[in-house]
Amino acid sequence: MAIAKAVKGALAGSSMIRKMFEEGSELKKKYGAGKVFDFSIGNPDLEPPPAFHEALVRLASEDAKGSHGYMPNPGFPGVREAVAQRASREQGAPLSGSHIIMASGAAGALNVILKTILNPGDELIVSAPYFMEYGAYVANHGGVLTAVDSGEDFNLDVEAIAASLTEKTAAVLINSPHNPTGRVYPRETLEELASALREHGRKTGRKPYLVSDEPYREIVYDGIEVPSVLAAYEESMVATSYSKNLSLPGERIGYIAVSPRAEGLDDLLAGLVYATRVLGYVNAPALMQRVVAALTGEKAAVAVYAARRDAFIEVLKETGIEYAPPQGTFYLFCKVPARKKNGPSADSDFTAHLKKHLILGVPGSSFKKPGWVRFAYCVDEKLIRDSAPAFRAAVAEW
Amino acid sequence: MAIAKAVKGALAGSSMIRKMFEEGSELKKKYGAGKVFDFSIGNPDLEPPPAFHEALVRLASEDAKGSHGYMPNPGFPGVREAVAQRASREQGAPLSGSHIIMASGAAGALNVILKTILNPGDELIVSAPYFMEYGAYVANHGGVLTAVDSGEDFNLDVEAIAASLTEKTAAVLINSPHNPTGRVYPRETLEELASALREHGRKTGRKPYLVSDEPYREIVYDGIEVPSVLAAYEESMVATSYSKNLSLPGERIGYIAVSPRAEGLDDLLAGLVYATRVLGYVNAPALMQRVVAALTGEKAAVAVYAARRDAFIEVLKETGIEYAPPQGTFYLFCKVPARKKNGPSADSDFTAHLKKHLILGVPGSSFKKPGWVRFAYCVDEKLIRDSAPAFRAAVAEW
Repeated sequence: MAIAKAVKGALAGSSMIRKMFEEGSELKKKYGAGKVFDFSIGNPDLEPPPAFHEALVRLASEDAKGSHGYMPNPGFPGVREAVAQRASREQGAPLSGSHIIMASGAAGALNVILKTILNPGDELIVSAPYFMEYGAYVANHGGVLTAVDSGEDFNLDVEAIAASLTEKTAAVLINSPHNPTGRVYPRETLEELASALREHGRKTGRKPYLVSDEPYREIVYDGIEVPSVLAAYEESMVATSYSKNLSLPGERIGYIAVSPRAEGLDDLLAGLVYATRVLGYVNAPALMQRVVAALTGEKAAVAVYAARRDAFIEVLKETGIEYAPPQGTFYLFCKVPARKKNGPSADSDFTAHLKKHLILGVPGSSFKKPGWVRFAYCVDEKLIRDSAPAFRAAVAEW
Repeated sequence: MAIAKAVKGALAGSSMIRKMFEEGSELKKKYGAGKVFDFSIGNPDLEPPPAFHEALVRLASEDAKGSHGYMPNPGFPGVREAVAQRASREQGAPLSGSHIIMASGAAGALNVILKTILNPGDELIVSAPYFMEYGAYVANHGGVLTAVDSGEDFNLDVEAIAASLTEKTAAVLINSPHNPTGRVYPRETLEELASALREHGRKTGRKPYLVSDEPYREIVYDGIEVPSVLAAYEESMVATSYSKNLSLPGERIGYIAVSPRAEGLDDLLAGLVYATRVLGYVNAPALMQRVVAALTGEKAAVAVYAARRDAFIEVLKETGIEYAPPQGTFYLFCKVPARKKNGPSADSDFTAHLKKHLILGVPGSSFKKPGWVRFAYCVDEKLIRDSAPAFRAAVAEW
């Protein structure tokens, strides 16, 4: 017996990344973890904050009746209300608990949304570079992903997106703050995009949804604010998680926030609840729902990431590697330097070259942006500083 | 903007069941919870055992570094090993951690399996009656569900299943102990089914998988054992959860166990890991993985369910309602009595009639078995005993 052909094909395609991770583990075994500058994975090294630990132990100890049993598919009513109150403030939109669907992380939230809105062959537009898993998520639900290049400064290219809209466009999916570029999309850009989507709706009778994937919303620098899609556009949804701000990626907890102004709101909400159920999520994990509801006052450890970002930028400046100025996230997206010596010069060649110097990054091609490389700085600041000589040597020999 | 047509259609279809639940809640508000005999939902009323609470508080308090972060998609290696040890004994198959994929409950496990094995248009065979969500799970992944009637005694009809196998059959999905009939499939039946699947493989070159959905494995009566598909057939998988035996349905924790003898085992395991990731599960909830791994000595509270079963059977006998003898689960599947008065006599008519007597059950049609009705006895034994006069009155007036 054999597995599905599409899955078999995907395994072959993703083996490169798996290989990279495996090689990283081998390098650490061989040279010691402190000698390998692993900037490859976006797995927060920070532990969850003390308030998380306190809330978890308190709620686990309470052992309230029914607290581990089924609740309505979109979540405990009290949890949805608590999440809505904070999300209302963040999003500048009047959200009540009914607009919140608790989800198994942002990846779960996106799959639930795509299951709900995609007819077979419907298109989802994303701005390249983009998180590589989006393609698989869209394929799960019979959709087609259309990638549109971002502008020079990695802002959304609204004109190009508008030109790509068709009668089959179910949604535009954005990610802000953005992985891998660290870009935060300005309010005016979201408003321009909203206008383009409305205009398309007037012409075709189908107004696409705007979906914003926002797990990095709290990890922003220099006092910047992340503008809200719910405020900018009536047919919008936010998919997010507590994985990055509370360092809980293994617990699979997040939510969907739906625009109260969406057309056919009741159908949309019922569809999201149905998708949550039949995709097999059934509901977001019960205990973690109650824990995050108790932590709506908690903030991400932005100062720690800001210091790491500054340290990393210092290293890059020293070695002359160009980077996109990061406004948020814990990624630095860097241009592959011009090759001075003979030899292949693609982004994957550069990451292979860096690996010889025990530096691990992800080629931009993995985000559909060749010629670039992503470094994740959710690692100790010392490791970042210690990487400077390796970066210098690598660039000198490139 | 509108949601996907298939989802919109499914909402219309599932509104009957939603309506039933809503009516149940209204009845309880009106008459008081103790006066409404709600046997409609399979939500264990038992709280998790004290050992669960102890393990949860201990592991939550420990606050081990990385315990809420990402781990490999199939789960913490130590958890997979612990689960494999118990599953090996239960299944009579030499499982190691590598054969275990931790999942978000059995519903999550089934979606991961179906994503992994179904090509578009591939068929999945189930034995009717069957859990109504299977249809949606198969549709999620582009498959087609083929229902084959079970035998008179609700055992699998292996001949009929064999006659339904085609070149497009990816798998046969069974559920034992069985919802809604309480049937446990005997070893000989599994072996006959395995022979039929092998024979089909010899003829067509495609040997279907046998998938067993086993969340009720521990809830069996009269010393019966649940025979193992992993022992009976080389191309087999088990999907299960801790929802029923430990009363944890809200926490979404379960696992897939894969036959070590499966052809192309490495591809199958890699496919399941890939599906776990891209369906947006990413991994089963981290803390609950560690909790269930600490509870491999724990057993379900079978004696409590056995007493309820006996109490319910007493009520049914008194009123002359025929039932399928339950070997496991907490369901009683009953024949709609012959109608003595004029009027419609379908299973949904009978459940509507019962509702007037404040008894709630699910029509067999919801499981593709008209003429029957399912009662769930995961409720207090007193409520079961108290329902006797209502049952007597309802049957007298039918």
